[in-house]
Amino acid sequence: MKIAVDAMGGDFAPREIVAGAVAAAEEYGLQIILVGTEKVVRKELSRLNYHGNNVSLLDAPDTINMGDGVMSLRRKSKSSIFLGAELVKKGEAQAFVSMGNTAAVTYISKKVLGSLEGIEKPGLALLIPTLEGVSLLIDVGASANCQPQHLLQFAIMGKVFMETALNRKNPTVALMSIGEEKNKGNELTLKSYERLQASGLNFIGNIEGKDIYSGEADIIVSDGFTGNVALKVSEGVVETMLILARHEVTKNIWAKIGFLLLKHHLKKIYKKIDYSEYGGAHLLGVNGICIIGHGRSNKKAVKNAIRIGKEVVLEKLQDKIREEMARYACVQGEVRL
Amino acid sequence: MKIAVDAMGGDFAPREIVAGAVAAAEEYGLQIILVGTEKVVRKELSRLNYHGNNVSLLDAPDTINMGDGVMSLRRKSKSSIFLGAELVKKGEAQAFVSMGNTAAVTYISKKVLGSLEGIEKPGLALLIPTLEGVSLLIDVGASANCQPQHLLQFAIMGKVFMETALNRKNPTVALMSIGEEKNKGNELTLKSYERLQASGLNFIGNIEGKDIYSGEADIIVSDGFTGNVALKVSEGVVETMLILARHEVTKNIWAKIGFLLLKHHLKKIYKKIDYSEYGGAHLLGVNGICIIGHGRSNKKAVKNAIRIGKEVVLEKLQDKIREEMARYACVQGEVRL
Repeated sequence: MKIAVDAMGGDFAPREIVAGAVAAAEEYGLQIILVGTEKVVRKELSRLNYHGNNVSLLDAPDTINMGDGVMSLRRKSKSSIFLGAELVKKGEAQAFVSMGNTAAVTYISKKVLGSLEGIEKPGLALLIPTLEGVSLLIDVGASANCQPQHLLQFAIMGKVFMETALNRKNPTVALMSIGEEKNKGNELTLKSYERLQASGLNFIGNIEGKDIYSGEADIIVSDGFTGNVALKVSEGVVETMLILARHEVTKNIWAKIGFLLLKHHLKKIYKKIDYSEYGGAHLLGVNGICIIGHGRSNKKAVKNAIRIGKEVVLEKLQDKIREEMARYACVQGEVRL
Repeated sequence: MKIAVDAMGGDFAPREIVAGAVAAAEEYGLQIILVGTEKVVRKELSRLNYHGNNVSLLDAPDTINMGDGVMSLRRKSKSSIFLGAELVKKGEAQAFVSMGNTAAVTYISKKVLGSLEGIEKPGLALLIPTLEGVSLLIDVGASANCQPQHLLQFAIMGKVFMETALNRKNPTVALMSIGEEKNKGNELTLKSYERLQASGLNFIGNIEGKDIYSGEADIIVSDGFTGNVALKVSEGVVETMLILARHEVTKNIWAKIGFLLLKHHLKKIYKKIDYSEYGGAHLLGVNGICIIGHGRSNKKAVKNAIRIGKEVVLEKLQDKIREEMARYACVQGEVRL
């Protein structure tokens, strides 16, 4: 199996990306195509002293910056994201993995790969840690403006993903809103509630922000704007609490000793909530497998993202989403969907 | 000064509400009108052995439930929320404080009190703890469906509040979005960005969810749906981390000792992020002072909410918002606002 990896995307690119890709190639026996500025990537490979045959290189002379708008992204057709997605489009890779700017990867992947039949907007699906294990939050930032049918499509794709990748049968679906009652929410969620209720999915109603980490829903559906805010706020709270804790702890010797005694346990908690364990988010709904990792991904997170890519290729995730969409369209009629 | 307090709203009503109200009456020398089911409130007062003259009672025979929709709220014109807001409307109280259902208090207060001139939708403004002190998040749940002009109105009201209640001069305003760049966001935030930039406010651009607790903006503006999700997600993360920590700590004796040594410091952190320190949220934009506390408010939180009510009455917050709105309307022309 061949997997294309964007060597230039992410805060610690290219070093951590190349290191993670090489580790994945060796550990999982995959063919990795590193897409990036040739000179830079080659330097990283020689730094790692890698001389195997599992990693090849595709030069991408264009560079994408954080501030690039749509017009500027379109012009850069030799960027690592563009070329990486194109490898999947042409069948030269079975999946594309990038730690780059979410908006850029989403925009380009959608443009290059197109949509799966029946899907109007892609949803970025992320496994989040909960008290019960993991749940799937979809969309965490691919489609900022949504209509009710898009949220229904996210729910169906999420269901297939959870059944396929996590073997969770008939997973529960909840709608992110601002109250558990049916009549609480904004225009989008009120209409989406009706759709989800009539969908035949295992819909359990609205879920409030405070409960998304409780594990009471397998899949939490949201428009990409709200989902992204929810995700980023979570990061902010954890970081703020850690800063406050560090600040308090340095104040006195007993607190320091207490902290040292707890350290091992705190690390276990941190591991539980650490995104790098879960590898990356899945851009569901485009016509090809595309995984977008966290911008701060280190070697381990990159390796995990590639492993997950391999797994969903083997499980034929795309075919299953296609089948499920066709089944829903058939049962409900095109208009309902 | 007279302050009306909803004795029936909140998870720990009437006990904690009555206790907090009595404490506020005694400590701040306020006249408190407790609005609620007479028999129940009287019982609480005698339990507290309160026989002073600072607390009076207004009977409210109708009861509001969590699931009550708009139609059912309208019928219950003898509910504690309705009668409490009416006391402010009639000038028989200078402020109304409730720990009840946010949606119900917002809906009824808006209906009874009407809007301030120039304001189309109320915004629920909450002081949130940050690394630098506190910032104001507006709207955390009063108006789930917003247009750009509403977000601009929230920003102006937030500015007046921060100048008046916290003495923060020319406070910075940021727009909650999903990227710092101007071109990141949804339809609402992209248009709101333009408005805020042209407003003459101290607008510093978009702020991502991960930065709302950093203190880099004095005021964070958001539609009520997104703001509510952000707030509730924050609560959920803190609760989840505490549950995980408790679970880890009980596993071994050294961790328990470590925890005991740290306990005092953890309490200080908790106090820093504890909503009850900040008393309540302000429903800005209605024609009267209305403070909505957290549903889980205890005696202390109730007392603090009443104290804050007293302060904004003394500072003539409503008059200042009215003046600022008139000034903006005058400078920018009605259409721009």
